[in-house]
Amino acid sequence: MRQAGTNLPKVGRYNRAVVLDQIQLADGVSRTEIAQHTGLTPQTVSGIVRRLLDEGIVREDGSSRVAGTGKPRTTLRINPDAGSAVGLHFDPVELACVVVDLLGKPLVLKRRPTPPGADPAAVVEAMADLVGDVLAEAKVPRDRVLGLGLASPGPIDQYSGMVVTPPKLAHWTRVPVKQQLSEATGLPVTLDNDATAAAIGERWSGAGKGVANFAYFFFGTGIGGGLVLNHQVHRGGSLNAAEFGHTTVLPDGPECYCGNRGCLEILVSPAAIIAETHRRLGEQVGSVLSEPFRRDPATVDHAAIRLAAASGDPLAGEIIDAAARHVASIAVSVVNITDVDLIVLGGHGIRHVETRYVDAVTAAVASRPLSRHIRVVDVAPSPLGADAAVVGGASLVLHATYSPQLSALLTD
Amino acid sequence: MRQAGTNLPKVGRYNRAVVLDQIQLADGVSRTEIAQHTGLTPQTVSGIVRRLLDEGIVREDGSSRVAGTGKPRTTLRINPDAGSAVGLHFDPVELACVVVDLLGKPLVLKRRPTPPGADPAAVVEAMADLVGDVLAEAKVPRDRVLGLGLASPGPIDQYSGMVVTPPKLAHWTRVPVKQQLSEATGLPVTLDNDATAAAIGERWSGAGKGVANFAYFFFGTGIGGGLVLNHQVHRGGSLNAAEFGHTTVLPDGPECYCGNRGCLEILVSPAAIIAETHRRLGEQVGSVLSEPFRRDPATVDHAAIRLAAASGDPLAGEIIDAAARHVASIAVSVVNITDVDLIVLGGHGIRHVETRYVDAVTAAVASRPLSRHIRVVDVAPSPLGADAAVVGGASLVLHATYSPQLSALLTD
Repeated sequence: MRQAGTNLPKVGRYNRAVVLDQIQLADGVSRTEIAQHTGLTPQTVSGIVRRLLDEGIVREDGSSRVAGTGKPRTTLRINPDAGSAVGLHFDPVELACVVVDLLGKPLVLKRRPTPPGADPAAVVEAMADLVGDVLAEAKVPRDRVLGLGLASPGPIDQYSGMVVTPPKLAHWTRVPVKQQLSEATGLPVTLDNDATAAAIGERWSGAGKGVANFAYFFFGTGIGGGLVLNHQVHRGGSLNAAEFGHTTVLPDGPECYCGNRGCLEILVSPAAIIAETHRRLGEQVGSVLSEPFRRDPATVDHAAIRLAAASGDPLAGEIIDAAARHVASIAVSVVNITDVDLIVLGGHGIRHVETRYVDAVTAAVASRPLSRHIRVVDVAPSPLGADAAVVGGASLVLHATYSPQLSALLTD
Repeated sequence: MRQAGTNLPKVGRYNRAVVLDQIQLADGVSRTEIAQHTGLTPQTVSGIVRRLLDEGIVREDGSSRVAGTGKPRTTLRINPDAGSAVGLHFDPVELACVVVDLLGKPLVLKRRPTPPGADPAAVVEAMADLVGDVLAEAKVPRDRVLGLGLASPGPIDQYSGMVVTPPKLAHWTRVPVKQQLSEATGLPVTLDNDATAAAIGERWSGAGKGVANFAYFFFGTGIGGGLVLNHQVHRGGSLNAAEFGHTTVLPDGPECYCGNRGCLEILVSPAAIIAETHRRLGEQVGSVLSEPFRRDPATVDHAAIRLAAASGDPLAGEIIDAAARHVASIAVSVVNITDVDLIVLGGHGIRHVETRYVDAVTAAVASRPLSRHIRVVDVAPSPLGADAAVVGGASLVLHATYSPQLSALLTD
């Protein structure tokens, strides 16, 4: 985003998005309330709402008398059936696809394994098939779909729509996936980092709804993140902000595949948690996991460890809590550096143990950042949970279409 | 900043600031170039420039023929004498005061020790005296002064104009310094964190001129920071972003007065560097500092150590390089989290050893952040050097008066 001026048509589009955003966030709001919340004049709000009603994007939902004044106010809501969006989450292990309505509510969600070897052409073909299946099952005609949002492991090159050497995907070196997927599905494709997509999902319909500044930690095969600053997704100069997983916790810690040392991800990824648990079980530490480990170590996977911790097993609990403390350490750095109001923790990698992670981060941000004397940062588990990335993919489309974006106000 | 709409008067003020910013950044620019750089129409630019000329803020500086076309273009520059601003830097040890012209060029700069005990009333009185002296020496009448910018140690409470429990200032608990200083000087006062002020100084007339995303590390009595993201100063939800000095380097490191452990500041502050040097000298390590240390340890202060390192002394060099590596580690976290394009290092605490700090940070950001595959982050020493905070204080006024600020575009 360059330091650009603005003009009337851009202001009109921006104000329209501001109004739509208010209606979407509030789930029932009057024209008067929109004017109060946005600083726009009642005339401007009325004009914008009239056009949104004509287009069928917004609907009137009865009227109520305001206590004391006797004046009737008409409640405005998003018309969820006015359009839909498709989300795709590309994980090295699994593809997930969802179709959502205009409020971001999932209609149909399907998963399938990523084709073995993850050859780009085979993956794009499998993605297109999955999109077709989901749209058919949801009975959504392709011409009602606003677009397809692909949430992919980073780093990505937004300008060229490419996935650039993502960790753990050996054959993916500058793959022009945006164009390939658009050709294969006939839909306009929006590409973003999976964690940024999940953060936009939180901003659209999760824990970050209406919050000006928040950081989102995404626990998947690795650890990603997203940042919303001043109500805007902060992407950074190279569009790769919020790489919380590769921020250093222990400067002399183990070497990470990313080239750094003692990164959060190398310490708390599923692989690290499994390795540490197996090591401790090999030392004959007592645990509900000892017996399964003796029979077949492979059954003691990340999910089994999280379930054991959730059921009160001391060894599993200790290992998860140690991981949560490392996450808390980076959360404190994120607060000291970006001064966010909220930390959201999500993704399938913390399922069943959300409370342990939330508790560790809550304790750390209440006691360590310098700004704690001014206000204490909130911490919340993601209500989207394991579906954050794929719902986030669909939110990419809704966000690009509807949310007030300064970049659209200020650039050509 | 809330998610607000905008309107024509706000757009007019914003576009005026965008044009003024272009003229200020370019040091000689034509109307046509401004239109190209900002996306504003030539008509809009002409109208704004006409008013700026009428007000005397901008002047025409001859015309040149554009190669090839033969068309004459008039060069526009800021009229540096159209106004001035006062900057004050409040450091626990020293007060500094500067008066600058409209381009941010210092006219007169004076320093004096902070009154012993740093009692708030005595400090405010000393500040007001210093402002009077500087304005008298610069022969600037008070009615030509746009305002006074106070750069103070954080945390501060912007809403109430108070300094809140700053480290190392025992008597400063919620002091309403903005109001007190305004009453004592008769000038409107802008208050900000010293490091944020210095970052704005870099944005206005230093290494960050025109850079969309940069992080500024400020080395003073402690280690502060400032963040410019998308051309805007990023202050954060509690207005205390960019606390790089209290970000953890060593989770099991020494306890910091801030309540955290192994912070950058506790490891690389002047006090830490002096303590480590004295410890090593006490162990009879050979150094140009050994003899002065034997005579009087107090003479081996931070400046002496930096000078020794600059002159090639191995012990001092080793200690400064170790500190620089800790700074580099936090710089990598800042890049991974915020994805800035540039890191600026400034403040009197790195004088004489700027190169060692720049080299360590350059090596780290070239080899460790995940985004290094997309582009390598620049690292630059601050050209404002030890005067960054006080010049930054004056820049607070210029910035508030002239720079395009989204908050002004979007809020009431």
